[in-house]
Amino acid sequence: MNKIEHIGIAVKSLKNANTLFEKLFGVPHYKVETVETEGVNTSFFKIGENKIELLEATKMDSPIAKFIAKKGEGIHHIAFDVSDIYAEIERLKKEGFTVLNETPKQGADNKLVAFLHPKTTNGVLIELCQEIKG
Amino acid sequence: MNKIEHIGIAVKSLKNANTLFEKLFGVPHYKVETVETEGVNTSFFKIGENKIELLEATKMDSPIAKFIAKKGEGIHHIAFDVSDIYAEIERLKKEGFTVLNETPKQGADNKLVAFLHPKTTNGVLIELCQEIKG
Repeated sequence: MNKIEHIGIAVKSLKNANTLFEKLFGVPHYKVETVETEGVNTSFFKIGENKIELLEATKMDSPIAKFIAKKGEGIHHIAFDVSDIYAEIERLKKEGFTVLNETPKQGADNKLVAFLHPKTTNGVLIELCQEIKG
Repeated sequence: MNKIEHIGIAVKSLKNANTLFEKLFGVPHYKVETVETEGVNTSFFKIGENKIELLEATKMDSPIAKFIAKKGEGIHHIAFDVSDIYAEIERLKKEGFTVLNETPKQGADNKLVAFLHPKTTNGVLIELCQEIKG
């Protein structure tokens, strides 16, 4: 894993959270993006070499809506940048981790992504992500 | 805020978690440290310019023990590196955030630290940290 690409934070209102995190970080978010397949609106802040991704559900059965219903607003996942997501998935499966997306899927921010089950990662939802080139 | 300094993860067993996260990251932890005043044993991994700090409670009334009892193992806080923690505390108070340590305290890894109350930060426990020089 090369670096922490972003930290995902589940929020009820993207509008309110954008205002709050702008005050916190002292910089505004630099883009918003909707990922229809995941049922989320997202916004991104840049802090050093990392990003913070705010996630707002667009429908009741979105994973983010379910997360907030169960745990409240807060940190949802950590995403790690990898150079070869297919090789990394194979490596982690061999190490005993449960990969939720054995075939990576299209995520926000022009990325191929795959998640690891938090039951195998100390309660932390881990995302692997690789930028889609070309 | 300059960058994400580290992400803190609450674990039940530092020994087991060190093995697990070494498999996950593909690199071993590079140090361990006990912070008596906080009731925690910690270990650190380096990923890109960030660190991952694993936190194991050393006593029943440690904040980490209480966190795990309430929420289970998982991400506990995000720490941001700041250049002047006193100025940052004043700035954030003026912005309406609740600062839990108006006078910074000594944390792990040779840092002055202060926490923001998660009720004012969208459910995210935020740590400000500044390296102690000299």
